[in-house]
Amino acid sequence: MLKRYLLAPGPTPVPPEVLLSMAMPMIHHRAPDFLPIIDSAKKGLQWLFQTKNDVLILTSTGTGGMVGSVNNFFNAGDKVLVLNGGKFGERWTKICQSYGLKVEEVMVDWGFCIKPEHVESALKKDPDIKGVFVQATETSTGVYHDIKGIAGVVKKFENTLFVVDAISALVAEDIRTDEWGIDIVVGGSQKGLMLPPGLAFVSVSDKAWKRNETSKIPHFYFNFKKERENLAKNQTNFTSAVTLIIGLNEAIRVLQQEGLENVFKRHARLANATREAVKALGLGIYSKESPSNSVTAIEAPAGVDGQQIYKILREKYGITGAGGQDRAKGKIFRLAHLGYADTFDVITGIAALEMVLKELGYNLKLGTGVAKAQELLMV
Amino acid sequence: MLKRYLLAPGPTPVPPEVLLSMAMPMIHHRAPDFLPIIDSAKKGLQWLFQTKNDVLILTSTGTGGMVGSVNNFFNAGDKVLVLNGGKFGERWTKICQSYGLKVEEVMVDWGFCIKPEHVESALKKDPDIKGVFVQATETSTGVYHDIKGIAGVVKKFENTLFVVDAISALVAEDIRTDEWGIDIVVGGSQKGLMLPPGLAFVSVSDKAWKRNETSKIPHFYFNFKKERENLAKNQTNFTSAVTLIIGLNEAIRVLQQEGLENVFKRHARLANATREAVKALGLGIYSKESPSNSVTAIEAPAGVDGQQIYKILREKYGITGAGGQDRAKGKIFRLAHLGYADTFDVITGIAALEMVLKELGYNLKLGTGVAKAQELLMV
Repeated sequence: MLKRYLLAPGPTPVPPEVLLSMAMPMIHHRAPDFLPIIDSAKKGLQWLFQTKNDVLILTSTGTGGMVGSVNNFFNAGDKVLVLNGGKFGERWTKICQSYGLKVEEVMVDWGFCIKPEHVESALKKDPDIKGVFVQATETSTGVYHDIKGIAGVVKKFENTLFVVDAISALVAEDIRTDEWGIDIVVGGSQKGLMLPPGLAFVSVSDKAWKRNETSKIPHFYFNFKKERENLAKNQTNFTSAVTLIIGLNEAIRVLQQEGLENVFKRHARLANATREAVKALGLGIYSKESPSNSVTAIEAPAGVDGQQIYKILREKYGITGAGGQDRAKGKIFRLAHLGYADTFDVITGIAALEMVLKELGYNLKLGTGVAKAQELLMV
Repeated sequence: MLKRYLLAPGPTPVPPEVLLSMAMPMIHHRAPDFLPIIDSAKKGLQWLFQTKNDVLILTSTGTGGMVGSVNNFFNAGDKVLVLNGGKFGERWTKICQSYGLKVEEVMVDWGFCIKPEHVESALKKDPDIKGVFVQATETSTGVYHDIKGIAGVVKKFENTLFVVDAISALVAEDIRTDEWGIDIVVGGSQKGLMLPPGLAFVSVSDKAWKRNETSKIPHFYFNFKKERENLAKNQTNFTSAVTLIIGLNEAIRVLQQEGLENVFKRHARLANATREAVKALGLGIYSKESPSNSVTAIEAPAGVDGQQIYKILREKYGITGAGGQDRAKGKIFRLAHLGYADTFDVITGIAALEMVLKELGYNLKLGTGVAKAQELLMV
């Protein structure tokens, strides 16, 4: 018997209350009893996104929300700036290019953080740039970019939309959509929101809706204008993912019970304990700057294959973390502390990591990392 | 947010597959589709109880199974021997006395083990003793009594039934009902069987059925003869606890997939790691002999209230263990490793215990017990 532990940066564990809510019998998405459910979901999302804007609910993965954030607000030939510090930065570039946008990239090495001043100089050099795209948390490197700083820069450029993929960051990081003036924020269900995959959320500012009027890229499924019109009537454009939206309300209820500030504090505490435990074991953190509160990217020790650590964690100890992607493959592995996560998820992840490293011949004293995590997680 | 961890000696955590099976729509207990479900359950229980005897399925807690094991096989005035080494030993005495049986007790101090020779000398002194009652695992002290040894003794006395309360021991200990010649074995759903409370199981030998014919104690609900007749038709005497019996089949399927020998090995491994981790912290094991594989009774350090440890574990860390009962109250607390339990349940329990002891001023180095558990649980 092997119990399963999900410590991946999405999908993440779903709390029992949420699972239970989604086990209720199906209701019809156009029937009157579904309207208050959508109404509640859209208010809950505004609370979570810290915005007065509408937050659209799409039946798709997070990537669908990213695609819609391109093809509803831009035109072929538009110049845009992609801030690329990892695998998901690359995705923005690919999506933009697939619709004929002209992409300029601000690149940083994997594990490093985009600087607002780099964004500012790029925008000053070319004031014709119509949008700036970034990840809040770059899941592949475990870096949280300086969204507040970058937002402060982009805000100064009247013709530029600031588009943030916050799929892995939401719930774990305090992202202030309205206060910082972020035009588009994309979220997904299977991360901090503690739901199964299948929903994307997109918050859209007035500035972005204005731009929407001039966008000519064809789209049928991700039609944000129609989604907005439907949302005003507590509906969605096509069939709703009824079950997931019911679960969404329950997940938001759970988060509201804890309080947004406490939710952020919990994530920061778990992330910090994970990093310090890893360091106590003599391992390096792959994120050289601004490590995220969602996921910790850990460097495999010299001579040890990061994918092997991932594999043994999973096969012998039942723990599903994540390996490295692309150029980080083999060099790192990742443990998340995202969503429905607490003290003993960190302890479990670190204890298992120690056991795996020991098996792989890495010189360590069992319990060293755990002790550091315990010290930091005592209440 | 506080995740909840159930490390009590019953109820124990229910595996997801079992929970899911119990979430299926209700079926009728007299309808044809329920017959194969009972059929499968009775075969599964025979496998688990290691017996060819019928294993009755009662809708009650384990105590109901104990009561039926008295009032179906004995008469007022019968002399019986209760082997009493703790809180649940006392319960046998109380049940027997409530039906007018004349109870003689073999007492051992809490934390100690009944010796087969004590049973033998008591039986030799009074060959008129009609039954010997014992707990396999005395949950209040964490002691596993020598069931094999005692069975070997009682077997020699033709007029004596051997009645074992194996409620907390089943699944965790290798109890060989037929091979050792145990007449009556009582089990419950909410322990090693990983189910919610609500079912008792009683295995009855031919020798006991013979005795049943002469028992005159009135009983209506726990009528074992009628239960046996019903079981032969894949039925129960009254309404079945349909949901729990469906869950029972799924729980047995999970155990069969692991294999009985592996199930016992897992429990022994987790119990051993728990004890050694506790000792590494300088704490004592309350069971001075034959510590059980279901639950570990841990002595609170001098000056520390065991109930306080239980309370802080629960309130600050979300971990529900158990305190001490009666004379052990305050002196001990208990952590179970029973049923749906694995490596990281032990790690979680020990890590949390360290954090609680540290808070209570006990001098320890965090991670010490965890390291010992990790060492013993590496695979």
